[in-house]
Amino acid sequence: MSVRIAIDAMGGDLAPKALVDGAVKAATANPDVQIILVGQPDKLPQEGSLPNNVTIEEAASVMAMDESVENLRKKRDSSIWVATKMVKEGRADAVISAGSTGAQMASALLLLGRIPGITRPGICTVFPTLTGGSILLDIGANLEIDVEQYLQFAVLGKVAAQALLKVENPTIGLLNNGTEEHKGTDKLVEAHQLLKQSGLNFIGNYEARDLMSGNVNVIVTDGFTGNAVLKTSEGLAKTFMGLLKKELSASMTRRLGAALIMPGLQNLKQMLDYKAIGGAPLLGVGGLSLVCHGSSDAETIQSAIKQTVNLQQSGFIEDMKQQAASFFSKNDK
Amino acid sequence: MSVRIAIDAMGGDLAPKALVDGAVKAATANPDVQIILVGQPDKLPQEGSLPNNVTIEEAASVMAMDESVENLRKKRDSSIWVATKMVKEGRADAVISAGSTGAQMASALLLLGRIPGITRPGICTVFPTLTGGSILLDIGANLEIDVEQYLQFAVLGKVAAQALLKVENPTIGLLNNGTEEHKGTDKLVEAHQLLKQSGLNFIGNYEARDLMSGNVNVIVTDGFTGNAVLKTSEGLAKTFMGLLKKELSASMTRRLGAALIMPGLQNLKQMLDYKAIGGAPLLGVGGLSLVCHGSSDAETIQSAIKQTVNLQQSGFIEDMKQQAASFFSKNDK
Repeated sequence: MSVRIAIDAMGGDLAPKALVDGAVKAATANPDVQIILVGQPDKLPQEGSLPNNVTIEEAASVMAMDESVENLRKKRDSSIWVATKMVKEGRADAVISAGSTGAQMASALLLLGRIPGITRPGICTVFPTLTGGSILLDIGANLEIDVEQYLQFAVLGKVAAQALLKVENPTIGLLNNGTEEHKGTDKLVEAHQLLKQSGLNFIGNYEARDLMSGNVNVIVTDGFTGNAVLKTSEGLAKTFMGLLKKELSASMTRRLGAALIMPGLQNLKQMLDYKAIGGAPLLGVGGLSLVCHGSSDAETIQSAIKQTVNLQQSGFIEDMKQQAASFFSKNDK
Repeated sequence: MSVRIAIDAMGGDLAPKALVDGAVKAATANPDVQIILVGQPDKLPQEGSLPNNVTIEEAASVMAMDESVENLRKKRDSSIWVATKMVKEGRADAVISAGSTGAQMASALLLLGRIPGITRPGICTVFPTLTGGSILLDIGANLEIDVEQYLQFAVLGKVAAQALLKVENPTIGLLNNGTEEHKGTDKLVEAHQLLKQSGLNFIGNYEARDLMSGNVNVIVTDGFTGNAVLKTSEGLAKTFMGLLKKELSASMTRRLGAALIMPGLQNLKQMLDYKAIGGAPLLGVGGLSLVCHGSSDAETIQSAIKQTVNLQQSGFIEDMKQQAASFFSKNDK
């Protein structure tokens, strides 16, 4: 069955070009997918110039990257709102955006709703590791969370790891400033105990220095810390590659050496590429809404579309609802 | 005038060897420094085998790295307590430790006291950046802080940047999840306003992805976030160098290429070395107590001793007291 994906064509640092190009590539590669580019028609290609399985839906305005989410109330004609509404109305199966994550989250929350058992939805990312990747959440939707939300995020992270990492019984770690049980704030000490008794595959506290080892599948933290950790990693990876490039071009000899090690450098670059993953679904909302990095290029968007098709076909949202319902009804007893 | 430094010879991953070797190197290089190795005599060299300006002070026990700080009450004969007590009693000018930071902080707090205006002391580090380094604090002494403590840490960070980075009027940034004024938790929004009106050289919110750029001298955050950010960076730098090494030795061709670029790799390694800095002083306590990384080797200890001599001779503690007193009396008006 074909999957219909609404794309917020106006959101992201490279919009609309990266979104349009990525959509066209994906649509050409997979004729079964149907893509709806949502945005301002005068900034998008004419429908006639696009593949048959790519159409355009008009949205007159855009939520800017740093715009206050409050403005969404007045901008019911913004591309992210219109795209998300298509999912609510059953005119699309999923929405993808590289624009303001706040606006995407708010649109999803208001139009697609929260799933039962979850106080507030979370945003995860697939963090690059030596073993392929780990799910890190929350990365910014909830700057401060209460004790129960750590548990909720663990359940949501588990479902995400099953779907995105293909791990059957994902291990879960609590990001903390030490591995011992008594470490961290009072809230974290309490969350640790809750996770320990949850029946989840909880391995205990996890230190940020081990993030890249990949020896845990899901890392749970509050949105402020998750955001700081993710941005530190992105910044450092970028700086590393920049420094390496500078050092390797500093002399004729080094440039020759660099040519010899090029395949190795490519591997390294790929490994540290925080964009290659594509996107990650909003967790805890009642419909499929995929968050892409703001700097996503056409290739990333293409990967995100492929991932969305997989998530839709594997029944990700139904699975998340069922697991949350089953977990929280059991734990309420 | 000679500087007398008490060294917690038993603290750290490589203790006592790294501490003893570092002390001997520093004492040999600078005959004006007097070093007292504090620890268990049976685990230390005989005094006769050491340079004349290195002596031994007995301390029967050790505070282990992960030992609860509570135990310090019963361990008044531990090396960190005895070494700090020498500073209190005027028998040493400063103490250096690579052992449990919690135990070092508690010893300093109880024996050397807080300086007026400061609720709780902080721990800083010189974070490696493209421009040499920035002061990051707090990195773990205070997991949660109140609004006023952000301001106190900004003042302490300023004094540290002046002494350690030799910057006259250091720029100060508030670590946050976005650069706009309204970003962050309620507490951070309030702290932002306080810093803005403080008269300090406050440049606004600062995102973790810019940490390595070095375009701010002091980054202020709570101890939980600072710890997570620092450990993320350390972990990534280590993983990055490991991956690079693996890629560069994967074939004969790459090994040849690696040989040609070796000087560049050495530069990179040095730049990312979180140990090379030596140590950083506890901020907000009434005496000089230098914190070294737990994995410090003899070279790091030698650098830390050199740094301690400089801090002592430049009147660091007096300067910190005066600046804090002047700042907080002015802001109380």
